[in-house]
Amino acid sequence: MTTLSVIGLGPMGQALSGALLDAHLPLSVWNRTESKAAGLLTRGARWAPSPAEAISASDLTMINVVDHAALDAIVDSAGQAVAGRTIVGLSSDAPECARRTAALVEKLGGRYLDGAVMTPTVTIGTPDASILFAGPRDLYDVHQATFTTLATPTWVGDEVGRAAGFDMALLDLFWTSVGGFMHALKVAGSNGIGPAELLPHAHGIVGILPPILDEIAERVGTDRHGDSDASVSSLASSLRHLIDASRDAGADTAALEALRRSADAAVAAGQGDDEVSRVTSYL
Amino acid sequence: MTTLSVIGLGPMGQALSGALLDAHLPLSVWNRTESKAAGLLTRGARWAPSPAEAISASDLTMINVVDHAALDAIVDSAGQAVAGRTIVGLSSDAPECARRTAALVEKLGGRYLDGAVMTPTVTIGTPDASILFAGPRDLYDVHQATFTTLATPTWVGDEVGRAAGFDMALLDLFWTSVGGFMHALKVAGSNGIGPAELLPHAHGIVGILPPILDEIAERVGTDRHGDSDASVSSLASSLRHLIDASRDAGADTAALEALRRSADAAVAAGQGDDEVSRVTSYL
Repeated sequence: MTTLSVIGLGPMGQALSGALLDAHLPLSVWNRTESKAAGLLTRGARWAPSPAEAISASDLTMINVVDHAALDAIVDSAGQAVAGRTIVGLSSDAPECARRTAALVEKLGGRYLDGAVMTPTVTIGTPDASILFAGPRDLYDVHQATFTTLATPTWVGDEVGRAAGFDMALLDLFWTSVGGFMHALKVAGSNGIGPAELLPHAHGIVGILPPILDEIAERVGTDRHGDSDASVSSLASSLRHLIDASRDAGADTAALEALRRSADAAVAAGQGDDEVSRVTSYL
Repeated sequence: MTTLSVIGLGPMGQALSGALLDAHLPLSVWNRTESKAAGLLTRGARWAPSPAEAISASDLTMINVVDHAALDAIVDSAGQAVAGRTIVGLSSDAPECARRTAALVEKLGGRYLDGAVMTPTVTIGTPDASILFAGPRDLYDVHQATFTTLATPTWVGDEVGRAAGFDMALLDLFWTSVGGFMHALKVAGSNGIGPAELLPHAHGIVGILPPILDEIAERVGTDRHGDSDASVSSLASSLRHLIDASRDAGADTAALEALRRSADAAVAAGQGDDEVSRVTSYL
C-alpha cells in the first residue's frame, strides 16, 4: 500500500487529507502551524515534525502551499529526504514555476508531478472534483488509484507545465468574467440600476456564452475568421461606447481599453471585417 | 392603427422591419443606401425619400443606426417633422447619449423612448427577443402592443438613460468575458494547449458562474463582505500568478493588472480578508 503525506493544511490541504483518511489510507501530515493538524490527528493521521520527515515517511507527498516559491522552499529544506520519493505540487502558479519545481525535485533525486485542482474544496473526495496532472505518464499511472480517491483525475501530458497552463488559462477566464460582472455592477449602479435588477439579465448573458465560446474556439483552432457574424470593427465601436459609459460611471476603463487596443490593432491590420475571434492573437 | 417607420436597415433594422411586415403593420423605411430596402419594399414596405419624410409619415419611428451621434444627426436633419411624433432610438451607446437624444427630440416637439435590444437579430419577432425601454411610462404604454410584435418588451423606468445603463452593464459583462476567453486561449496556446483541449474546461468555468454572480450581487446589494469564502487577498495573489503566466505567454497583461490594482487598493484599505465582492467599489 502506498504511504502518503500531505504538507500544507489550508482549506484544500484539509480537504485532501480528510478524503485520504476517509479512504483509510496511511497519512502523515505537516503544516507550519501545528494546531491546524489537530482534527486530522484525531482521525488517525500521523504528525511529521518537519517537511523532510513528512517526505521521507511516504512514497508520495502532496504539497499544497500558497505558491511555488513556498513549495520550492519546502522541497529545498527537505534536501536528501527527497531522493527516491514522489512529490506532487498542487499550488496554483505559472507553468514556468512548475518546470522549476520539477527540476529542483529531480536534482535531489526525486520524481515530480504537477497538479491543478480545478474545483472547490467541497467537491474533494467525490467524482465531481477535478484535478489535472502533468508530468511522466508512468509516474501518474502508479498513483492514479490514489488520485481517484480525491477526485476525477486527468493526466494532461508529460510536459510538466501543462497542468499549470490549464490552471492559468481557466483562472484567467474565471477572474476576468467575475471582474467583468463586478465592473458591470458599478456601471449599472451609477445609472440607478441595483445588483438585484441587473442579476437576472446577467444570468441571460452567461447563458448565451457557451455556443459563443464553441464558435471562437473552432475559429481560433482552424485560424478561420471570415464570414463574420460579429466583426472586429463592431467590437471596437461597441468598446468605445462602453469606455465612455464606464468613464461617466466613475469606473476604471483600463481593462476595456486593453481589449479595445487589441481590436484596433486588428482593424489597423486590415482585419476589421473579420470575426472577433481574430482579436485573440493581439491580446 | 399606429403607422410605423424604421430608419436604418442594417441587420437589426432589417429584422425589426421584417417582423413588423409579418404582423401586417403599415411600414415606411429609410436607409442611407436605398438598395438595402429592396427586399422590404417587395414585401409591402413604403420607401420614404428622407428621414424627415419617414418621421412625418408615421406616429412612431424606430431608428437603428450605428450610435447616438448618427441618431442625433438624423433627428436634427428631420427638424420640424419631429413635432408631434414619437421617436424610439435603438442604438447601443452610453446612457448620457440617450439623455442628449431625448432632449433634442423634445426640443423639436417630439417624444422619445430609448430602447436597448438585448438579444441577437435571429430572435426578433419571437418572445425570445428582449428589448428594454426607458422613458415616459404613458408613451411606452401607448406603443407596448407594437413592441410586443417585435420582442418581449420590458419598461425599465422613466429615466431615459436606464435602458442604455442596462445595455452598457450587460455588454461590459459580455465582452469582458468573451475577451477573457480569447486571452485564456492565448495563454493556453503558449503552453501547448489547443482551443479544443481548453474548451470543455472553459464550459466548466462558465457553468460555475451563476451561483457566484448571485452571491456577489447579494453582497454588493447589502454591502456585506465578511465571512469570506474567496478573499480579496487570495484574489490579489492569484492575479499575480496570472499576470506572470500571461507575460510568459507573450499576452497583454493590462486587463489583469487593472483588476489587481483594484484588489490591491482594497487590501491597502485593510479589506484583504473580505470577500472579493469588496473589490467592486474599487473597479
